[in-house]
Parts: sequence; C-alpha cells; structure tokens
Amino acid sequence: MNITLDQAKNAIKAAMAKADELGVKMNIAVVDSGANLTAFARMDGAWLGSVDISIKKARTARFFDMNTGEIGNLSQPGGSLYNIEHSNNGLITFPGGIPIRAGSGEIIGAIGVSGSTVEDDHAVAEAGIKAIS
Amino acid sequence: MNITLDQAKNAIKAAMAKADELGVKMNIAVVDSGANLTAFARMDGAWLGSVDISIKKARTARFFDMNTGEIGNLSQPGGSLYNIEHSNNGLITFPGGIPIRAGSGEIIGAIGVSGSTVEDDHAVAEAGIKAIS
Amino acid sequence: MNITLDQAKNAIKAAMAKADELGVKMNIAVVDSGANLTAFARMDGAWLGSVDISIKKARTARFFDMNTGEIGNLSQPGGSLYNIEHSNNGLITFPGGIPIRAGSGEIIGAIGVSGSTVEDDHAVAEAGIKAIS
Amino acid sequence: MNITLDQAKNAIKAAMAKADELGVKMNIAVVDSGANLTAFARMDGAWLGSVDISIKKARTARFFDMNTGEIGNLSQPGGSLYNIEHSNNGLITFPGGIPIRAGSGEIIGAIGVSGSTVEDDHAVAEAGIKAIS
Repeated sequence: MNITLDQAKNAIKAAMAKADELGVKMNIAVVDSGANLTAFARMDGAWLGSVDISIKKARTARFFDMNTGEIGNLSQPGGSLYNIEHSNNGLITFPGGIPIRAGSGEIIGAIGVSGSTVEDDHAVAEAGIKAIS
Repeated sequence: MNITLDQAKNAIKAAMAKADELGVKMNIAVVDSGANLTAFARMDGAWLGSVDISIKKARTARFFDMNTGEIGNLSQPGGSLYNIEHSNNGLITFPGGIPIRAGSGEIIGAIGVSGSTVEDDHAVAEAGIKAIS
Repeated sequence: MNITLDQAKNAIKAAMAKADELGVKMNIAVVDSGANLTAFARMDGAWLGSVDISIKKARTARFFDMNTGEIGNLSQPGGSLYNIEHSNNGLITFPGGIPIRAGSGEIIGAIGVSGSTVEDDHAVAEAGIKAIS
Repeated sequence: MNITLDQAKNAIKAAMAKADELGVKMNIAVVDSGANLTAFARMDGAWLGSVDISIKKARTARFFDMNTGEIGNLSQPGGSLYNIEHSNNGLITFPGGIPIRAGSGEIIGAIGVSGSTVEDDHAVAEAGIKAIS
C-alpha cells in the first residue's frame, strides 16, 4: 500500500496552513512506502538548506518507521545508535519527520518538515499527517 | 527575481494536465533562480528513476540557462562539452528541462520533466512553462 | 504489492542453478517494488566488481520498469537518453536487469545479474524470474 | 581463506531463526575477507534503513577485525577514534557487526545485523556466527 499524490498534496497543503498560522516558512517533503520522493514544496523565502533536510527527515522516518526525533534520542554520544546518521547517504534525526499511516495502521509513506525550530517543524509535520489520516 | 511557490505549483498543475492528455505519468520538478528545488510532484505510477532525473533536468536547465537538449547536442563524443554530465553531481542533458522566464525575459527558475519519451517530456515541460509566462 | 523474501530467495536459487548449467559465476540481486535491496548472493569466485553492478541493474530495471538493455539501446552517443547513467547515483544500462511481475502483471520488484557476458547475465536473470512467476 | 556462499547462507538462515525466536525483523549481511558483500537478506517488513546499516556493520567489523560496538566505544567525543565513522564512505560503530573466524581462528568475513535494538542485533549476529564456526 502506497500513499497517492493526492494524499501527499493534501498533507503538504495542511502543513503549509499550519506554517502560516505559526508565521514560519517551511520546506515540506512527502515520500512513499519505498522512501521515494512523492511531493515537495518550499514556501517562498524558506531556508534553502532545508530542502535536503526535509527530504532526509521524510526518508529517515520511513527508513525506521518512527518519528525522527526518537532516533535522535538514541544517536547521541554514548547512546546506542551513536552516529547512525552516517548511513543511507545521511539521515536527519531531530524532530520533523513522521511516518504516515493508512486507516488500517499500515505505513504508506512519511512526511518531513524543515525551516524553523524543531518544535515548529514537528507541529507542522503533524498537521500534515492529520489531514490525510 | 525568483519564481514563487504559487507559480511553481501552477506550472506543475498545467504540466500534469498535459501529461494526462498524452496518457503518460510524469515526475515534474521546479527549481528557482538559485537552482534549488521549489516544488515537485510524482504522478501515481510514474517511474521511480525519474524522480532524480526530473530534478537534475530542472537544475541543468538553470545551471546553463538553456534547454537540456541543447547541452546534450554539445556533450556527445567529439563534442565541445563531451561528458559535461560528470559535473555538478550529475547533469541530465537530454530534452525535458527548460528555463522559466519572467515576462521581462529574466530567468527565474526552471522546470524538469521525466517519465516518458524525451519528446513527451519536453512537451509536458513546455505546457508547464506556458501556464506561468 | 511487494516481492517477499521467499520469492526473492527462490529467484536467486533458480538463477544460480542456471548459472551452474552455463558454467559461470554470478552476482544476483533482488530489489522490491520500492527499489530497495531484498536479497543478494555472490557465487564463490564471482567478480567482486559485479556486486555493485548486479544491485544497480536490479534498481535500474525497477526505476524504469523495463529490461536494463532496453535503456542501454537509448543511452548510446546520439541516442535520446545519452548519459542517463549519471542519474540515481549510477545506473547500469546493459542487459542483466529485469522487472519482476506478479501474476496480475503488477511489478513487485526486479532482479539484476552480473558476472559473465551480458547474454549470460540476461539468461540467468530470466531463469530467476521464471521461478516465481 | 574466504567464507563460502554456503557458509554465508547458513549464517543468515541461523540468524533469521534467532530473529524469529526474538520476534523481530532483521536485515542481515555477510561480507567476505575482502569486505565485499557475499550474501544479504531482508526479512519481510524489516526496516528499509537497515539495509545499508547491516551492510556497513559487516564491512566495519571486517575493516577492523573487531565487533562494531568496540569501535563505537572509541569513537565517542573525546575518544581516540572520534568520528572515525566519516571514513570508508560511512562506518556503523554500534553493536550488530561481528567478524567471522574459521576453526583456525583466521578471519574469513563478517556478519552485520540491523533491525531492532542493538542488543537484539548483536544476539542475532552471534546466532549467525555460531552456525558456521
């Protein structure tokens, strides 16, 4: 089972509405169940460096089927997954990436958001998720 | 001067309408005047390998401010730009990438399309361009 | 729909039987519908350089849903897809990669074989496909 | 002296049996004495991001002829091998990678396992090792 482009676009639209509400400018990426890019949007004026980060967050969330921030908790110095970020051509392990589940609970893709604080990034990603679940 | 997300989304929408008309499934990428990804969409069922190609076509078109196919004419064996594709982490130099110009003629970004023959790819890219110029 | 590990193992087993019959030593890779590696085997004494080639052939076949050799026909100097190999972190576009279809015709993955002539590579890949379709 | 494909397959089979016993889904990679991939299997539903990690763990274990976790102890901030993970196109230095020795003690390859906690990953790798020593 795989996310559709329509679902991905709806997630991005809802995420951008949340970003507007917060007064922030975001890069938003959606990948499918195979971790391949499905849709992407960079809000006018959003950080250029966040293009890659948002895509990597989405991929990381699907790679391990969990929120990116959970991995970051384990990849700190002394943590069990220290420096896992060196795998897969680069992971991003701070918040802003969340798996997307179908109603059945099956993971059909993931969203990644980057452009502000990690709290804002996560909140915007969550708004995107809610629009399609 | 730079393409806006709204313009990029309109270009993608028009490109997808053309793809539907042609009965093909496309990956469509739009980059800004700095050659940074602005918006992207993969139509359901479109080739996975064309994610990267569409982005590289858009970037290539903006890198050199010309249609990707024109560069390909020069990069053949014996040509003046032979194997230029090795630069910039990989160029794509066959048709499907076109610079986007403002009404003034200034280049504000580029579009890249991949998913069918290069003729279809180019036609879909042109449809995207027309929607915003 | 996605290939299972059991299907992938059966494909590799059948491919190795064909390789034995031909008296050649092969690297055999199977990817899933998202082009992610599912299973791999290198026969004792097979070329080391073919590890990467077999994986890239499988990925290339799934990236474009066609036999790798078909792409190679189009990527020659003067061809419409010249130097497409620079995309996706490297494609391999000579024979030996074939998409894997379910009974319904849906593509569920791909196989890539490398270690001998491209004719042998393709024959071994086909033997792998037949075992699971 | 080098691991054979049969040995590698037996190691993977035993590792998967242990994974089943633990109720986890693993990616399992075996490399030879030259640190080149010999065999690989991803259990159905195992993390996609662990494809690369399991291969990197196996390679890391053979690169330095020790368990990956031992290297991780030295690569922490302030440690003697701080950030060694930047070498060799990316190392993984937490547990789950173990060298494989022949009866004589000679190292003939390595196994890498990824898909659960590092404790589980290491236990599954050890089960694989036991099957062939």
